[in-house]
Amino acid sequence: MRQLTAIGFETDLRQTSGQPLVIGAYRPPGGGARLPHILFYGHYDVQPADPVDLWTSPPFEPQIRTSRTGKDSIFARGACDDKGQLMTFIEASRAWLAVHGVLPFRLTVMLEGDEEGDASHLDRYLAAHAADFPVDAVFICDTGMWGGNTPAIETRLRGCIGEEVTITGPRIDLHSGYYGGPAVNPIKVLSRILAAMHDAKGKVTIPGFYDGVKPIPPSLRKQWEKLKFPAKEYLADVGLSIPAGESNYSVLEQIWARPTAEVNGIFGGYRGPGSKTVLPAEATAKLTFRLVEGQKPKNVRKAFRDFVKARLPADCKAAFDGSGGESTGIAVSEDTPWIKAASRALKAEWGEPPVLIGGGGSIPVVESFKKHLKTDSLLVGFARDDDNVHSPDEKYDVECYHKGIRSWARIISELS
Amino acid sequence: MRQLTAIGFETDLRQTSGQPLVIGAYRPPGGGARLPHILFYGHYDVQPADPVDLWTSPPFEPQIRTSRTGKDSIFARGACDDKGQLMTFIEASRAWLAVHGVLPFRLTVMLEGDEEGDASHLDRYLAAHAADFPVDAVFICDTGMWGGNTPAIETRLRGCIGEEVTITGPRIDLHSGYYGGPAVNPIKVLSRILAAMHDAKGKVTIPGFYDGVKPIPPSLRKQWEKLKFPAKEYLADVGLSIPAGESNYSVLEQIWARPTAEVNGIFGGYRGPGSKTVLPAEATAKLTFRLVEGQKPKNVRKAFRDFVKARLPADCKAAFDGSGGESTGIAVSEDTPWIKAASRALKAEWGEPPVLIGGGGSIPVVESFKKHLKTDSLLVGFARDDDNVHSPDEKYDVECYHKGIRSWARIISELS
Repeated sequence: MRQLTAIGFETDLRQTSGQPLVIGAYRPPGGGARLPHILFYGHYDVQPADPVDLWTSPPFEPQIRTSRTGKDSIFARGACDDKGQLMTFIEASRAWLAVHGVLPFRLTVMLEGDEEGDASHLDRYLAAHAADFPVDAVFICDTGMWGGNTPAIETRLRGCIGEEVTITGPRIDLHSGYYGGPAVNPIKVLSRILAAMHDAKGKVTIPGFYDGVKPIPPSLRKQWEKLKFPAKEYLADVGLSIPAGESNYSVLEQIWARPTAEVNGIFGGYRGPGSKTVLPAEATAKLTFRLVEGQKPKNVRKAFRDFVKARLPADCKAAFDGSGGESTGIAVSEDTPWIKAASRALKAEWGEPPVLIGGGGSIPVVESFKKHLKTDSLLVGFARDDDNVHSPDEKYDVECYHKGIRSWARIISELS
Repeated sequence: MRQLTAIGFETDLRQTSGQPLVIGAYRPPGGGARLPHILFYGHYDVQPADPVDLWTSPPFEPQIRTSRTGKDSIFARGACDDKGQLMTFIEASRAWLAVHGVLPFRLTVMLEGDEEGDASHLDRYLAAHAADFPVDAVFICDTGMWGGNTPAIETRLRGCIGEEVTITGPRIDLHSGYYGGPAVNPIKVLSRILAAMHDAKGKVTIPGFYDGVKPIPPSLRKQWEKLKFPAKEYLADVGLSIPAGESNYSVLEQIWARPTAEVNGIFGGYRGPGSKTVLPAEATAKLTFRLVEGQKPKNVRKAFRDFVKARLPADCKAAFDGSGGESTGIAVSEDTPWIKAASRALKAEWGEPPVLIGGGGSIPVVESFKKHLKTDSLLVGFARDDDNVHSPDEKYDVECYHKGIRSWARIISELS
């Protein structure tokens, strides 16, 4: 907040249901009503430093040392995620103002304190105060580069819905001696449903599941192919060797651009030691569906429930619990002026054009901005894969910090 | 033991690894080496009387009252299971000896104290002392009548093997945002295997599973059809309406004469409250297979394991735990001299021929006798469905007691 005040931003601390929100507002001379209004988002909270023993230097006393890759790096909790990254934008703004005296847009800086915790605080705040933020674009600096040196803009995030289903058969657990055979077994019913959810090629078979899913643009597919993602090593790293998703998509496409139906947990019947000849009264599965842009969470949920009901023996019941939440998948069009400007700027700084990458998971705040402010986010970040984010010895390379600042300065220039 | 001594049997208390075994030996004058040697088995232990509050009279103070069906009944814990039932044979022996002075066979009465508990005590004892019991037949009075008034001989008992399988995929739990799609999901692999275990008609699809299973003799099928088993009510009683077993067999046949593959429990991944976007590293199912005569437990276990392995993706592993035990299915030939004799006797006493019934579960002692003494058991009993066995107000109808004694006397007569 002091940094923002120091460069002439009007700062403010807003109370939310969680940690306070740091706001810094910059308006060009005359108010700049005709200039675009940019919201820059970062977060000041960090993951706990535990286990502190594993840190080489104290986590909250930043130190510049040479990292294992031979680069000068800032070591500290939050050095990368997200204090170092958010400072690249603030330093770029400071430098630009020092040289030019004025930024080519209206700017609201928003730094939250619940990114690592409960995303619902900011979501609620934005829902209630959307009118305070009539912005044209959101810039976020909380993502990474590709392979260490190639700049990247994240344009795709998968959404997610959580769902639980409990199949009930007999009204009580039964003895398999007396009922084994004629009595329906809810575990078998559930297994059959889960097994039927995918075909042999890994495609989800739930009718309507893919409704609204757009094909991956051929230009993007080509770009991703060129990344030569080491799918084999990616799987080998977790002990696997065979891509299990849709066989007509590459591993990278499966993660970045294709929806999934996943079983996260299952339980039913006897789970203690040894054997018990019981036929269980019920069985439960917990599922999540990763969604891509175009899929409607409510429709997917309904499609799944219909799929279950259609496979239910007449004397079984299914109960659903949808309290696992839902978020939509996001894909930012590749040809917005913001992405074009950022692409030119990043190419100029890093010597090669940025790749448009995806993220397999969700970033809740991106959805909150989309939902409440009706605004797409431009996700540009300079983290490297070896930055130990969330782990001991978190670091941020000085090179990334400097070139990150220059990248934002070039983006500001592009928007002039 | 006093009762056995009182009628002239030589009694003995044998130590086992559990409760002591009461033995009563009768030898006709001269030793009766040419006469058959019968082992009569019963058990003196009972289920706990809890909840005692729900008993009309104290559980260990026998009382004769009119039951809900208007019959005089002996109310007490064990009145039926198995003190009352075993006394029918002892009283018949006492009466026969009083009248004729000599029984037409050598007889060893064996009353154990671990029937309701751990069957392995007697099994171990019989394994170690088989030579002490060179018997020709085992008579057991611990089963029921059919529909209240039709005498029954139980000739079929299903065996059981317990098996556990754990499917392992990735070496750790994974985040479904980063790996959802390409990473194989052990819950899905397990579900597919369990779902494939039966076809649409309820038949087990595991190759070799039915090896050795003999068709149900047409005469027996016809006899069972005549029983008009109320399958609809049997299922409705536990909240079901559709027989889920092999569709070309009746519910009664499914329980009495057909093997099954049952899932008794399943677990894997996240099972706590709410939702978690985890892809689990492993999933486990507990299974039991009910077996009929002719199936070899070891072969069935191997067939299942082969079935699992054949469906395993190359980067998944399956671990098996076979410590759940195994027992073979038993079917006593319908035309042994013992069954023929008992059938004539029971028809004479009850006015109609006995039905040859099955029991869906196992009676471990029957298998122990078969295994260690190489002897089939003749299971004749006079329990009624409303006897509240194992429950408060257990009873045994005086009519069953009297006619049971007379039934055994008639069987003894048939063996003369």
